[in-house]
Amino acid sequence: MANSEFQYVRLHETWDGLAPDNWIVVRIDGKGFSKFTKRYDFAKPNDRRAIDLMNAAAVEVVKQFVDIVVAYGQSDEYSFVFHEDTTLFDRRAFKLATTIATTFSVEYALQWPQFFPGQPLTRPFPTFDGRTVLYPKLRNLRDYLSWRQADCHINNLYNTTFWSMVQLGGMTPTAAELELKKWLNQNQGTVSADKNEILFSRFKINYNNEPEVYRKGSVVFREFDDPPPSTDTNIDPHSATNPPTPTQPHQTQTKPLSKTQAEKERKRRQKARVVVEHVDIIKDGFWDSRPWILASRG
Amino acid sequence: MANSEFQYVRLHETWDGLAPDNWIVVRIDGKGFSKFTKRYDFAKPNDRRAIDLMNAAAVEVVKQFVDIVVAYGQSDEYSFVFHEDTTLFDRRAFKLATTIATTFSVEYALQWPQFFPGQPLTRPFPTFDGRTVLYPKLRNLRDYLSWRQADCHINNLYNTTFWSMVQLGGMTPTAAELELKKWLNQNQGTVSADKNEILFSRFKINYNNEPEVYRKGSVVFREFDDPPPSTDTNIDPHSATNPPTPTQPHQTQTKPLSKTQAEKERKRRQKARVVVEHVDIIKDGFWDSRPWILASRG
Amino acid sequence: MANSEFQYVRLHETWDGLAPDNWIVVRIDGKGFSKFTKRYDFAKPNDRRAIDLMNAAAVEVVKQFVDIVVAYGQSDEYSFVFHEDTTLFDRRAFKLATTIATTFSVEYALQWPQFFPGQPLTRPFPTFDGRTVLYPKLRNLRDYLSWRQADCHINNLYNTTFWSMVQLGGMTPTAAELELKKWLNQNQGTVSADKNEILFSRFKINYNNEPEVYRKGSVVFREFDDPPPSTDTNIDPHSATNPPTPTQPHQTQTKPLSKTQAEKERKRRQKARVVVEHVDIIKDGFWDSRPWILASRG
Amino acid sequence: MANSEFQYVRLHETWDGLAPDNWIVVRIDGKGFSKFTKRYDFAKPNDRRAIDLMNAAAVEVVKQFVDIVVAYGQSDEYSFVFHEDTTLFDRRAFKLATTIATTFSVEYALQWPQFFPGQPLTRPFPTFDGRTVLYPKLRNLRDYLSWRQADCHINNLYNTTFWSMVQLGGMTPTAAELELKKWLNQNQGTVSADKNEILFSRFKINYNNEPEVYRKGSVVFREFDDPPPSTDTNIDPHSATNPPTPTQPHQTQTKPLSKTQAEKERKRRQKARVVVEHVDIIKDGFWDSRPWILASRG
Repeated sequence: MANSEFQYVRLHETWDGLAPDNWIVVRIDGKGFSKFTKRYDFAKPNDRRAIDLMNAAAVEVVKQFVDIVVAYGQSDEYSFVFHEDTTLFDRRAFKLATTIATTFSVEYALQWPQFFPGQPLTRPFPTFDGRTVLYPKLRNLRDYLSWRQADCHINNLYNTTFWSMVQLGGMTPTAAELELKKWLNQNQGTVSADKNEILFSRFKINYNNEPEVYRKGSVVFREFDDPPPSTDTNIDPHSATNPPTPTQPHQTQTKPLSKTQAEKERKRRQKARVVVEHVDIIKDGFWDSRPWILASRG
Repeated sequence: MANSEFQYVRLHETWDGLAPDNWIVVRIDGKGFSKFTKRYDFAKPNDRRAIDLMNAAAVEVVKQFVDIVVAYGQSDEYSFVFHEDTTLFDRRAFKLATTIATTFSVEYALQWPQFFPGQPLTRPFPTFDGRTVLYPKLRNLRDYLSWRQADCHINNLYNTTFWSMVQLGGMTPTAAELELKKWLNQNQGTVSADKNEILFSRFKINYNNEPEVYRKGSVVFREFDDPPPSTDTNIDPHSATNPPTPTQPHQTQTKPLSKTQAEKERKRRQKARVVVEHVDIIKDGFWDSRPWILASRG
Repeated sequence: MANSEFQYVRLHETWDGLAPDNWIVVRIDGKGFSKFTKRYDFAKPNDRRAIDLMNAAAVEVVKQFVDIVVAYGQSDEYSFVFHEDTTLFDRRAFKLATTIATTFSVEYALQWPQFFPGQPLTRPFPTFDGRTVLYPKLRNLRDYLSWRQADCHINNLYNTTFWSMVQLGGMTPTAAELELKKWLNQNQGTVSADKNEILFSRFKINYNNEPEVYRKGSVVFREFDDPPPSTDTNIDPHSATNPPTPTQPHQTQTKPLSKTQAEKERKRRQKARVVVEHVDIIKDGFWDSRPWILASRG
Repeated sequence: MANSEFQYVRLHETWDGLAPDNWIVVRIDGKGFSKFTKRYDFAKPNDRRAIDLMNAAAVEVVKQFVDIVVAYGQSDEYSFVFHEDTTLFDRRAFKLATTIATTFSVEYALQWPQFFPGQPLTRPFPTFDGRTVLYPKLRNLRDYLSWRQADCHINNLYNTTFWSMVQLGGMTPTAAELELKKWLNQNQGTVSADKNEILFSRFKINYNNEPEVYRKGSVVFREFDDPPPSTDTNIDPHSATNPPTPTQPHQTQTKPLSKTQAEKERKRRQKARVVVEHVDIIKDGFWDSRPWILASRG
């Protein structure tokens, strides 16, 4: 029963290494979460326990994989950003996507009792699917993160308005949806301001006073107590996109760290505090004040 | 803060639908399981609790996804076979791989306490990565499954011999490994018989009396109490590879079931008993007596 | 000026080997041929010289690549079918597509003067783009070829009718198009018969008397003077899709020919006559009487 | 004979659009050119007629496709660089590779008689295969081109030395190869200088006096009589890699030109002179003095 006669089937496996010099995003999404959230009576428009659980799971993922430089989450999705130079799993797409999705899903399931005590999980258990997306330029990556945060804002503004009309205004969901659609059609382009006004004038809710965790989503990254190593300190925050002046060949730029240096850097990252903040990542402020997050690796 | 200016980043997402008319295998593998099994003192060469847990998780995966026609597991890996005609998730590779990997991983984590009571899981939690592989012909799929079962046999025979030498024979692991290597080099091609003999003559162990669950691995599939629908009853067991006689166009063969029929079939599958057996799947017997497993869908 | 510092760019090249055990079709299409045919006053609806040139080029392509088992052409397109077991260029998609497309294009350009004497080619010169498509089952391949021949029929019937209305009926192109559209809308499902009738009743043209080269397109394949080797003679014409009975492992089926045998077979193919016929390839007759074309390779 | 029953085969065609925001290189290579060059008695180490023909073909390719910003050729290969923003053929890889490969191959075949009069082409005719490669950063693209030019230098130095030893030194090819290998092994790292010295001391050939067309290869690009439009004039030569400061969203950077502007730009490119030069493209000088070649498109 030697297996040599069957081994040809391995030739059907394909290599799935992702192109070098691209930022890798692994985005995960809750599977069937509209049903799931009803089954567990999630508060509307936002359930703080659920968001805290998402963030707790994401923090563990970031801690475990030091090549993740930043993660952004909102609703039932999370995006994990691997540095463009990562060689984790030889950049194999399926390894990356399934490892992140399973690590997150298991964290979510095992931490659930702490956030939803007295509501034990029943089948189908919550899971998160995942995919990889490549971004060639730092600009593309920034725009991707901006896209997700803008999406968070738009959805949350809509949901907050909708649920205020239902919960505080006593409208039926159907009536609220109809009225919102009408406004949206009449006021294309001024959507946000309009909805702000509805919220304020009807329900005395000032949207800008809503908690930032709902309006901005959650950003997960490393904070260092010690200053970053000297090669990074003087770095222009945008330097990761600045190629060396062309006289310097690429090799100089990405000369791999020596093994000792790399190990030292890995340990430094492992020791760093992984924090969660609810802040604007569309404008430059966040990135300018934390240059190490997207810095090129010397 | 409209997000339209950022939406171009979606163009970087690629379509990952798998080619039609191919059998889809999703194979999952335990991440870092050699460390993990040491951490939890798994019995060597096989830990029955661990195998039972793998199988319990696999059964739930098969129950949840009716397009999985058969699954095969051994050691810390499991292969789930989707019918060549499945349209689940539009055959998107990442959806398939991550959904199976996360569902399995969460089942494994949540069922753990029943199989390892008193040994609560600590981080890093066990997870399983996953990948998809396509097999164009039924013959290829059968050979794939044969490959995995032959691999199970070879590994288990080696491990049983090795651990007998250590546990019963009092050899050090290094000494046992050396002696086995020597034999292997001297007896290429007669490996299995040799190891059988060592086991028997030294430790009075007849390998063929070892439990089938270790020697054959585990096969998960559906058993039906009611006979399969009439279209399948008269079917030649190999019919899934027999194209219609070429005068019949393909359309006839794969004419999609009507919506009512498809729903009825789905329910029939959901009601079926999902069973685990430890049997030979390299020879034809298993498949011939269960023609519905790989049958084409009329 | 060593180039080692730049060699990392090779890592950006991706492997494009096509999946094993699939039939490979390379289809080429004339680039901008509606303009090109006007520039050279091609006869309408069909220009015999142009079709003869296409076929002459295709014959040379088939002669040069013995792993092409059959080719089918119509209008300004040609499909070249590589045997599912071919290892030409390690099955690399770009090698296959560009080699076939360039060989065909150069043949077309260099043979042009024989078919269009006195009409020298000017820029932009005619070229043909190309692509690869995989078909896992022989049934899929047969259906692909049927699709192209049915397409030939439908287009040719339409064009013959249209140009008869214009050339013989004295209608303007616009009027002819309108009238045809009206008929098509009124007679969905009975399209061909209708057009046949228009042709016949108005212009006394019996479509079935139109030359087969226009109605059926062109099939290019090998004819052998000597009978095929004994392993093939007793073969069921559909055997390429019949897997061996599952007790025979795959290895037996596709055991590679010995080097001497393979070389002998290659020479036999090179010596074969490459012929062009205009025959039905949708029904089984053509294939049944030439079993060697799609036969599995023993 | 409706073809609807066969149309499902189209589902087997896969989408091959290349990722946005990447530079696209189509590299073509002569098929079987070591045999071909012997058949037509190409001069060794370099045949000026052959190189002139390669360049003449490349110039026509660049003229025909205005989205090619630069091309680089040496020996029997040519690399055509499409701007990272090109939307030609919807960035479909096979369309791009086969169109360039066929256009080049047909030009080569049809211009052959002007460069090799009295030596008519016989079968197998010369053809060039092709492939696409993506480079995410301008730095990667520059390094790719440097890699090809460094390769040209290394090969040409070796070939010039080797053929001098044979043609002027009267050595057999085998003896020359052996002696060169010995030197190479003894003098790793100082290779070029060594070979220069051999050339000079033995054959009184100063390699640096060899024609630049052999030492540098050929660069094909557009020269404009009119200054480029004002948006480009003040541009930093490396600006294509400089993202806008992050406060400017991506949209601003790549806002597509208006239709009129785009058409005007296309015409401007079509009118430009396409030139061939044999110059260094590894250092910055070439690029700094021709900023329009790699400039971003505003």
